Amino acid sequence: MSTTPDSAVRTYIDRHRAAFLDDLVEWLRIPSVSAQPEHAPDVRRSAEWLAARLAGTGFPTAEVWPTAGAPAVFAEWPSEDPLAPTVLVYGHHDVQPAAREDGWESEPFAPEIREGRLYGRGAADDKGQVFFHTLGVRAHLAATGRTAPAVHLKLLIEGEEESGSPHFRALLEANADRLAADAVIVSDTGMWSEDTPTVCTGMRGLAECEIVLHGPEQDIHSGSFGGAVPNPATALARLVAALHDEDARVAVPGFYDGVSDLTDRERALFAELPFDEERWLRTARSTATHGEAGYTTLERVWARPTAEVNGIGGGYQGPGSKTVVPASARVKLSFRLVDGQEPDHIEKVVRAWAAEQVPAGIRSEIIFGPATRPCLTPLDHPALRSLVRAMGRAFEQPIRYTREGGSGPAADLQEVLGAPVLFLGISVPSDGWHAPNEKVELDLLLKGAEAGAHLWSDLGESWRHER
Amino acid sequence: MSTTPDSAVRTYIDRHRAAFLDDLVEWLRIPSVSAQPEHAPDVRRSAEWLAARLAGTGFPTAEVWPTAGAPAVFAEWPSEDPLAPTVLVYGHHDVQPAAREDGWESEPFAPEIREGRLYGRGAADDKGQVFFHTLGVRAHLAATGRTAPAVHLKLLIEGEEESGSPHFRALLEANADRLAADAVIVSDTGMWSEDTPTVCTGMRGLAECEIVLHGPEQDIHSGSFGGAVPNPATALARLVAALHDEDARVAVPGFYDGVSDLTDRERALFAELPFDEERWLRTARSTATHGEAGYTTLERVWARPTAEVNGIGGGYQGPGSKTVVPASARVKLSFRLVDGQEPDHIEKVVRAWAAEQVPAGIRSEIIFGPATRPCLTPLDHPALRSLVRAMGRAFEQPIRYTREGGSGPAADLQEVLGAPVLFLGISVPSDGWHAPNEKVELDLLLKGAEAGAHLWSDLGESWRHER
Repeated sequence: MSTTPDSAVRTYIDRHRAAFLDDLVEWLRIPSVSAQPEHAPDVRRSAEWLAARLAGTGFPTAEVWPTAGAPAVFAEWPSEDPLAPTVLVYGHHDVQPAAREDGWESEPFAPEIREGRLYGRGAADDKGQVFFHTLGVRAHLAATGRTAPAVHLKLLIEGEEESGSPHFRALLEANADRLAADAVIVSDTGMWSEDTPTVCTGMRGLAECEIVLHGPEQDIHSGSFGGAVPNPATALARLVAALHDEDARVAVPGFYDGVSDLTDRERALFAELPFDEERWLRTARSTATHGEAGYTTLERVWARPTAEVNGIGGGYQGPGSKTVVPASARVKLSFRLVDGQEPDHIEKVVRAWAAEQVPAGIRSEIIFGPATRPCLTPLDHPALRSLVRAMGRAFEQPIRYTREGGSGPAADLQEVLGAPVLFLGISVPSDGWHAPNEKVELDLLLKGAEAGAHLWSDLGESWRHER
Repeated sequence: MSTTPDSAVRTYIDRHRAAFLDDLVEWLRIPSVSAQPEHAPDVRRSAEWLAARLAGTGFPTAEVWPTAGAPAVFAEWPSEDPLAPTVLVYGHHDVQPAAREDGWESEPFAPEIREGRLYGRGAADDKGQVFFHTLGVRAHLAATGRTAPAVHLKLLIEGEEESGSPHFRALLEANADRLAADAVIVSDTGMWSEDTPTVCTGMRGLAECEIVLHGPEQDIHSGSFGGAVPNPATALARLVAALHDEDARVAVPGFYDGVSDLTDRERALFAELPFDEERWLRTARSTATHGEAGYTTLERVWARPTAEVNGIGGGYQGPGSKTVVPASARVKLSFRLVDGQEPDHIEKVVRAWAAEQVPAGIRSEIIFGPATRPCLTPLDHPALRSLVRAMGRAFEQPIRYTREGGSGPAADLQEVLGAPVLFLGISVPSDGWHAPNEKVELDLLLKGAEAGAHLWSDLGESWRHER
């Protein structure tokens, strides 16, 4: 029997599967919940555990990096080939809160394997998807006979992703030299489904603001004054209503500046996916789709910018009634951004638009929070081609393309490091991120290791630098 | 010196002023706060005190009438002339809550006279304005030499007005025979100002509803789903924005059914008032007027129907941000109604209109509360002419006409008893109803007694019935 590189990778992974899972279970037992201060020691312990394990995997450098919050882990394994590209893998070792009484069938921090699935908080988001890289890099070495990877491999595994990554950008900026890379591989996303392996090629950005409209100095009697002074809740409703036109396009002038329409190829790639609207609506807990005219549901959530009301409030909200003209009313808006949109520009055009909506006698206040940029992997990037080939070898199936509608620290990596971001994730929608009974499919987890092993070989062979 | 009836009334009132004020102060000491259950015994005591005092004044009938809530007081003093008209005076003996620490300069239930003003909770709203009738009817008898009033005089003084009069309509319906009257005199309103004595000729009605729009079954992630499902907060804003057209007219089809435009005479009467927009805006705690095109501020608040947002809410309203598409959003609306508008019709047209505003994928729920009808005194009614003459004799000045923008139980009196409602009130805007340091101007209080005295004479002489 001839040994192909693919079968060699698979053989290595099969042989080391049990030890790999034992280690992952040990890590999952550490309740590294970054949002709960009482778990701060666990988050530190999780970082130390990971650094030790990466050193054990063979990374010559494996360090715990403190931040103003929870620590990150950095590891590096240089290639012996100086012309090899440098790749930085991003993930996180902190997890969402979890308690048995939330509906878990087993203890969230006492992982259990049942029917080919590993159940436990962090199994998919994100410890499992970080940890398959340890198995993947060893399989890569074993299958190729190398003593060091075919790429300069770096890992940055943060500890505050589930808390909004408040110190992540500062960490990147302070360590930009050591983190420098030709490409970033984010392993913190998922695939379309178990049957349809995919690579994600982008995330939307996010700009958020709160608009407060002030009317009378205090709530006033709607019988005595109603109908003769401006009502800030009415004014706010009119402002929010003016946010979209009749085609559900965002009606803020300048909002679409810089946005390119989807190319035929992008639309074709989305259309290849087995989208089932009924099933999607069940996931969305909704009964009808609604969105920008001229776009499919997937195009709307992945590739088009949006404006959403996240919360609105003003006046009397208790039981029964109270006949007042409220003193103020406020709305929280979030804007999802796509490639070409700049948060600063969005803030500028939203402020200008909002100022126009406010009638005489109403004072407005607009507060913008920190923004996240969109990121998009160029479809013709050589590293993406390597990633798709590596996934194809692991899954033995055509690899389709998705995007993420949400936003994340990937954009900071792209911006601070000046490198394209790619997504290697094997989680599926049923994995229950942030929910009770989070799990990862063991078969897919091992496919992730396999894809990683092939990716380092492919990148090392196809993307050498002539420096 | 000849004694005119007017000087005789004045002389009687001057002579009995001190005893009258002593009695009123005694009544004001009873904290008859209907909204606070711990004061229920005080509200009963207040009713008993008043019934005893009315008997002492000479009313042959003076009874405490229990209700399912706080008791009312009924008194009756028939005329000796069987053809005399029957008049029912309405007021209330319960008061708003008050505590020294709210900013009172003296104890709210330990009344004090300072600089010609009587300070204490209930001084103007409404005990003072109820009690001047005891002095008025005695002055009427003294000045005319009668032993019984020139009209069949009835009083109904309720005990739950400050709690929304929940049992008032049932009380009226159960006692409609004993309460039957040719005209109702409501003494629970005020005048334009100390310098500009006025009679109020109407109150607006009130219909209230809450509209709830339901979207996803629970809050869903705005990154994953935003832009592709209907957002109930956005839909609610669009519904509220559609409530008014660009002229600030209510855009609900059928809303203005039955509404007559103001006559030239009505507009002229409003225009006679010394309206100062700057001062009005200060009272409204607002910086600009805004309302239905083609109407003055006074016309807007007194004589035009309106739609106001009293409260709005949905989604995340806490600090910071939360990227959700909310499961639901709700708005509390109130509609002020004018003569010709029927609450049932308003409910019907609002329901039909709201149903049209709700997009696919959003479920709506509309809850209407109990409504209050508008009431309007016909300007040519003989009893109103009597009232204006009586006020003119008391104040020795022309009497102007106002209305109230608010709503009250007057409409129930009009409807259940089938009698026109007139308003005899001497309170002024600075009296501080529902506020700390509520007071009544003693001069005006005595003018109220004087106007009452003249009113019974005038009605008895000018409006005898040929039955």
